[in-house]
Amino acid sequence: MPRIAYFGPEGTFTEQATRAFLGDPPTDTRPVAPDSELRPLETIAAALDAVRSGEADAACVPVENSVEGSVAATLDALVAGDPLVAIAETVLPIRFTVLVRPGAAAADVRTVATHPHAAAQVRGWLAENLPSAAVLPSSSTAAAAVGVLAGEYDAAVAAPAAAARYPLAALATDVADVRDAVTRFLLVRRPGPAPARTGADRTSVAAVTADRIGALSEVLTVLAGHGINMTRIESRPTRNRLGEYRFFLDFEGHVADHRVGAALAALRRHCAEVRFLGSFPRADQAPNTVPTTTADEDFASAQRWLTAVREGREA
Amino acid sequence: MPRIAYFGPEGTFTEQATRAFLGDPPTDTRPVAPDSELRPLETIAAALDAVRSGEADAACVPVENSVEGSVAATLDALVAGDPLVAIAETVLPIRFTVLVRPGAAAADVRTVATHPHAAAQVRGWLAENLPSAAVLPSSSTAAAAVGVLAGEYDAAVAAPAAAARYPLAALATDVADVRDAVTRFLLVRRPGPAPARTGADRTSVAAVTADRIGALSEVLTVLAGHGINMTRIESRPTRNRLGEYRFFLDFEGHVADHRVGAALAALRRHCAEVRFLGSFPRADQAPNTVPTTTADEDFASAQRWLTAVREGREA
Repeated sequence: MPRIAYFGPEGTFTEQATRAFLGDPPTDTRPVAPDSELRPLETIAAALDAVRSGEADAACVPVENSVEGSVAATLDALVAGDPLVAIAETVLPIRFTVLVRPGAAAADVRTVATHPHAAAQVRGWLAENLPSAAVLPSSSTAAAAVGVLAGEYDAAVAAPAAAARYPLAALATDVADVRDAVTRFLLVRRPGPAPARTGADRTSVAAVTADRIGALSEVLTVLAGHGINMTRIESRPTRNRLGEYRFFLDFEGHVADHRVGAALAALRRHCAEVRFLGSFPRADQAPNTVPTTTADEDFASAQRWLTAVREGREA
Repeated sequence: MPRIAYFGPEGTFTEQATRAFLGDPPTDTRPVAPDSELRPLETIAAALDAVRSGEADAACVPVENSVEGSVAATLDALVAGDPLVAIAETVLPIRFTVLVRPGAAAADVRTVATHPHAAAQVRGWLAENLPSAAVLPSSSTAAAAVGVLAGEYDAAVAAPAAAARYPLAALATDVADVRDAVTRFLLVRRPGPAPARTGADRTSVAAVTADRIGALSEVLTVLAGHGINMTRIESRPTRNRLGEYRFFLDFEGHVADHRVGAALAALRRHCAEVRFLGSFPRADQAPNTVPTTTADEDFASAQRWLTAVREGREA
């Protein structure tokens, strides 16, 4: 039975993302078996290290939130130890459920607890719907739900996963000041064959460029020359040397695509260090843009011509 | 008396950064008057909007933490309303002070409160030094200190600014699992003449590129061609259109430098949208790298030659 570590505790959006990877709710694709054993761990680094040590077969961690930005702890932990690769992503809308003890009404709510990040995302809703309730911080949205069960608070702003886990009643669902807030999660494991390409894939790499002006520009020119469409870029200082940066890049395509393979090999030549962080199906299933001149057949026919030229059969 | 808004509450690292801009502790440079009136506001957006509306003359907000990454709320709020420009930066080491009621000892500490972000950065220290204390979440490090005063908790992990503000005793100072964690803060105001160039400056811009492959690569090639040394890059989806990104770029140099001006004007031609976010002295005072061929005198002598060619005096 596969063991899947995740950034806990139970009852959070990360548990919900982990269950999505198990096919709950049901989907066409399911990167891990539905009977996998889930193991909540206390930090993102601990979840990834459990995979590195073999205690877990895979780990689910948040990588990017549309409101809060990248999850730096995940980026740093991905490159801080033995290689790990992502094999799947899932995107969850961040809409909260407000939980109370069964039978309680809005008028009974004098205290409402949640994680400070969540509090920032429901500030407007609380001001409008529970204006006289005091907002108290909790260490996680799930801990807030547990606190309501224990009678410490009257309400919790929590993930829908907490509503499923605890015998509490939903005072409101789909609560969010920013309607389109989403978080993207990755399922990572130790290196192995990448999932089959689907034509709607994403590839993720971390690269350390040479410490000179124009080094990043060179690297991006190489990617553009191979028809690579980037979807994210972010620099993080490496801590090894002042002025040295590591770039986290996401782009369309799969390592099995000729243009992606050629671009990765070129990155390897141009960069001081490159780490492949995985190729996997895009959660939104948006088909990859493949510019004319960079399809697999374009590369193959150019290679046939070059071979012929080298053998003196064509010119 | 200048009014300076900041992301509150009082007694946090952001208050400490704001005081640094006022010259406390004393420094050579001081972008605002030492008798400025400080106004803590509840959110980053509120602090920036107070400057836009004229209620405040400047605002101090965090922009980047070496452990947590960029502060997305600041980046988004900088481009979400009328233009604002940074006129100064300061970098604070993130080292906590553990506060208790006067006379209390480590053995008395059964509960220790702090903001969840801070908790993540002192986990190791707490495990070693207060192993039997329960760690409780607070809405800010300053709120934890207030809770200790009120007798709700035995100890608070807070900013040194809280130790100065509240009649509490320091059980430990300089507490941090990651020794070199720092946060960079900006002082922003409405557009006006930039601070004088020092030769150790940073310039910050936000640019929306055309939605096509290679657009970012083109932009960075333009910057590299002008000898611009980037110190940070980060993409954020614009929310206007799927696949459209805004890039936040920091680079060495001052808008008054010829190479920086030429690069900004070229960005303006290449990008769908460019917003200047300020030129200001680098907190570390590290002199800017000016590649040969891109010093002001190189541009001036090339211009003199071009003028002479156009007038038929040289060739």
